[in-house]
Amino acid sequence: MYRSHTCGELRETHINTKVILSGWVQKTRDKGFVVWIDLRDRYGITQLVFDEDRTSSKLIEQARSLGREFVVQINGTVIERASKNPNIPTGNIEVLVEELTVLNESETPPFTIENETDGGEDIRMKYRYLDIRRNPVKENLIFRSKVSMEVRKYLSNEGFIEVETPYLIKSTPEGARDFVVPSRMNKGQFYALPQSPQTFKQLLMIGGMDKYFQIVKCFRDEDLRADRQPEFTQIDCEMAFVEQEDILNAFEGLTKHLLKEIKGVEIDSFPRMSYDDAMRKYGNDKPDIRFGMEFGELNAVAQHKDFGVFNNAELVVGIAVPGANSYTRKEIDKLIDWVRRPQVGALGMVYSRCNDDGSFKSSVDKFYDQEDLAKWAEVTGAKAGDLICVLSGDANKVRTQLSALRMELAERLGLRNAEEFAPLWVVDFPLLELDEETGHYHAMHHPFTSPKPGQLKLLDTDPGAVKANAYDLVLNGNEIGGGSIRIHDKEMQSTMFKHLGFTPEEAKAQFGFLMDAFQYGAPPHGGIAFGLDRLVAILGGQETIRDFIAFPKNNSGRDVMIDAPAAIDDEQLKELNLKLDI
Amino acid sequence: MYRSHTCGELRETHINTKVILSGWVQKTRDKGFVVWIDLRDRYGITQLVFDEDRTSSKLIEQARSLGREFVVQINGTVIERASKNPNIPTGNIEVLVEELTVLNESETPPFTIENETDGGEDIRMKYRYLDIRRNPVKENLIFRSKVSMEVRKYLSNEGFIEVETPYLIKSTPEGARDFVVPSRMNKGQFYALPQSPQTFKQLLMIGGMDKYFQIVKCFRDEDLRADRQPEFTQIDCEMAFVEQEDILNAFEGLTKHLLKEIKGVEIDSFPRMSYDDAMRKYGNDKPDIRFGMEFGELNAVAQHKDFGVFNNAELVVGIAVPGANSYTRKEIDKLIDWVRRPQVGALGMVYSRCNDDGSFKSSVDKFYDQEDLAKWAEVTGAKAGDLICVLSGDANKVRTQLSALRMELAERLGLRNAEEFAPLWVVDFPLLELDEETGHYHAMHHPFTSPKPGQLKLLDTDPGAVKANAYDLVLNGNEIGGGSIRIHDKEMQSTMFKHLGFTPEEAKAQFGFLMDAFQYGAPPHGGIAFGLDRLVAILGGQETIRDFIAFPKNNSGRDVMIDAPAAIDDEQLKELNLKLDI
Repeated sequence: MYRSHTCGELRETHINTKVILSGWVQKTRDKGFVVWIDLRDRYGITQLVFDEDRTSSKLIEQARSLGREFVVQINGTVIERASKNPNIPTGNIEVLVEELTVLNESETPPFTIENETDGGEDIRMKYRYLDIRRNPVKENLIFRSKVSMEVRKYLSNEGFIEVETPYLIKSTPEGARDFVVPSRMNKGQFYALPQSPQTFKQLLMIGGMDKYFQIVKCFRDEDLRADRQPEFTQIDCEMAFVEQEDILNAFEGLTKHLLKEIKGVEIDSFPRMSYDDAMRKYGNDKPDIRFGMEFGELNAVAQHKDFGVFNNAELVVGIAVPGANSYTRKEIDKLIDWVRRPQVGALGMVYSRCNDDGSFKSSVDKFYDQEDLAKWAEVTGAKAGDLICVLSGDANKVRTQLSALRMELAERLGLRNAEEFAPLWVVDFPLLELDEETGHYHAMHHPFTSPKPGQLKLLDTDPGAVKANAYDLVLNGNEIGGGSIRIHDKEMQSTMFKHLGFTPEEAKAQFGFLMDAFQYGAPPHGGIAFGLDRLVAILGGQETIRDFIAFPKNNSGRDVMIDAPAAIDDEQLKELNLKLDI
Repeated sequence: MYRSHTCGELRETHINTKVILSGWVQKTRDKGFVVWIDLRDRYGITQLVFDEDRTSSKLIEQARSLGREFVVQINGTVIERASKNPNIPTGNIEVLVEELTVLNESETPPFTIENETDGGEDIRMKYRYLDIRRNPVKENLIFRSKVSMEVRKYLSNEGFIEVETPYLIKSTPEGARDFVVPSRMNKGQFYALPQSPQTFKQLLMIGGMDKYFQIVKCFRDEDLRADRQPEFTQIDCEMAFVEQEDILNAFEGLTKHLLKEIKGVEIDSFPRMSYDDAMRKYGNDKPDIRFGMEFGELNAVAQHKDFGVFNNAELVVGIAVPGANSYTRKEIDKLIDWVRRPQVGALGMVYSRCNDDGSFKSSVDKFYDQEDLAKWAEVTGAKAGDLICVLSGDANKVRTQLSALRMELAERLGLRNAEEFAPLWVVDFPLLELDEETGHYHAMHHPFTSPKPGQLKLLDTDPGAVKANAYDLVLNGNEIGGGSIRIHDKEMQSTMFKHLGFTPEEAKAQFGFLMDAFQYGAPPHGGIAFGLDRLVAILGGQETIRDFIAFPKNNSGRDVMIDAPAAIDDEQLKELNLKLDI
């Protein structure tokens, strides 16, 4: 037996108990006549003591010889600590060691195994197994496990069945790139790894499975942006015989359950906002509503003077930044530089200070008088002490720019409180999205999303105006889930493929099995998928998903710990009937 | 709202309730003045009634027009059935329909959606989504979901953390073939799909995660034997600071929990048997101990006469087949033909009938007298009425042959009761296995398995004799789990790689990260992995895993429903820097 107790378990009630502990040497303090060792395992730290009065000199010497991260087993007796440590649960006791066995030695680790480590990101990724020993990483993984378990418990109790769908499927040209897997047994052919189990879950609905979920890995061979992973985990869900309302209620239930069980936060019912409103009020389809700074559209009150910049703009829009009248001219100039960075792309920023005496001082006083500026304040909801920031230009672009500014200022002002949770349903998404480069429309959600009843005809005349029963669940400014009511009619699906630029042959080759399935009594159905990595990160009060993944890949899609991907044998290539073409 | 109740829910207490149901048309019976329709969903069947007295003729006509598998929604009132059906839970009621909406039509399905269908395996696989509508398949998938959930609940309660390990890893030449995934971002390099998360779970132990599990897909590009799948699901588990005994207890606990929760079967403690004993007694490392027919080794009582076949054999071994003295000469001849089939490979079979009067009648009476045959009966445990079947030859081969005969006879005699559960730990597996073709030893379990303490030296002198702390959990003659105590010492791991024929360079290239990790305080650890597909099938009283997989592949690794694998675009190949070489 390697241990009778864990290193997080012993309390005053255990005093005088003989115990066996195993763990890692966290720290040694040698006072000459007494040596203390902090022994660490997954559950905590227990202080070991060796002293001249009660310990043999041989054992003390052995204790002194232990390095950081040595793995040891000890037998000893729990005793009361002379100087207690109220900061750790085992702080009232220590273990007087009677026997010590080194289970394994350790080289000095390349970074310290402490909550705040001296190791940079790269080295911690290379030695991820050591990084996992650190409390913050370890706790994140345990937290993730807990969230997954709660998801499963809740959905199982609600009658959802977890069904495993295949990983070796078929490549589809839609959307992001597939990872493909050459088949040795089927020469020249490839499987693809799923970007999501979308078609399979729809087939399960056609199969009568009615309430399906799965926590499942998905794969996308995209050029990775920061904080994207080539493999990611989805809580994938689908229901049959439902309308949008049923789905929103079911998964609002799930999210409430998680907030309550995991964070102790109770939220009554989630607000809903249309996509159009979200864009208008926040310039963003995933608005963070933990704070205000709603957009005020100023065209009516800013385009009546001689200021050409505004007069020529499609949209003039501003936000009131609370308390920001205190910003110095220099600080405001920096803010203007910030919005002009290429990542944001504004040409400039107009501002108006809201003074305590009710007067205004703007960067465009040449054009606008106090009465004008008072109207700006009214429209943006600015109060004395606020700063009104105004951008102008093409409506879509300027909304995105102002949204970036809004988020940045909220961050600076500490308005994005990680312990506050503000869920929001964004509904009524457009069905299609214009690709400005190609001039073609593509599916905003995916090609299986159903247009809203009665809007099918609009597809021919005004495709961009067609709305879908598609919805996103937004939490603290992050999209944590998204879904839609699906098409379940073969004709409508054909029409949709046609509008998305598939030839009938392409549609048949790629999705023939789904179209076939629609012929045999497909029920009305819809679903949702949550990004587990992000959900867990946000529930954990963070926004970096990498910290919640045991073995993440870097921005080049590499696992630097195992050094993958890697070259393979010529032999292996030959068996797969492949040649490199570099 | 598509439904107020499911089709499995309504009882006599609902009589006079207005309900909305949705589902598929299972069956229509038209008696002229009355039409009954069985409406089916995941939860059951409810009888709908339309009759001339109470239903408009238009509605009756509409009911008559419905085909099998049409999806309909009805509004109606629950009424008492005139002729009750005690075979289904809703058999006391029916619903008098007031409104009927066709939600989707259906072509006539290619096979009947009944428990006993007229569809063959191939057509059912092609239309798997229709097959899933059938109760037996649907129930299997729900059963699987339940087993997975119970596994997770039990292990979570025991402090195990489910950690997701990566799917895009690195190819290793050990054992079966990897599926590989070309990397677009890393030219000429490939990921591999995991055959198991073995090294990652060991790294988690080194990371202090201590109790890990994961229900995870694994991949093997093998030439598929019947009932093997290229992707399969594993319950993967690992523990640190444990000895073999700790692991056996932990997972005996899990298995008992499953047997109790899922099957209502309570088993006290699982018997254990050494690998050597299992081979000697059953000719098999996964013996089915639901029945006897233990092997009796007959060398001592069969090699003293002039029967050359036996005298020249390394092993003469028999089993007593209960009650099989009733077999006719013709039946026994057929049995002899059966063991001589190339799949079994015996040269012949000797038998001895155990007559009711205590006498024997054997096929080798020329060589053996009654006293000899009495000893055979004693050694094999044969009683009056039994038939002793004896094979001889090379020990390993003859054991395998007799094991095949034993299993075949048990099947024929109905001794393999699917509702009886006989778990068994087989322990003390050999560390290495001789590959008779190459003359090389390879790891019986995997190269990370630790030899039993003190046996390392034997590796040089008698590698085949080295035993490992490796164990299998056997249930009803199937291996449902297997694992071992792992090596946690860098030197021992190097030695092991050397014995397995890896050069130091190969070992470093393939497993350098693991060897590195061993330098930083690797704790003693070990684990086990269960084959979920098989476990579920056996708990479900069946042995074919395909019936418990939602979308299985066929023996060529094809998904015939979606028609994968398939060719991919030249464009896609080019992006991956690959050329076909066919």
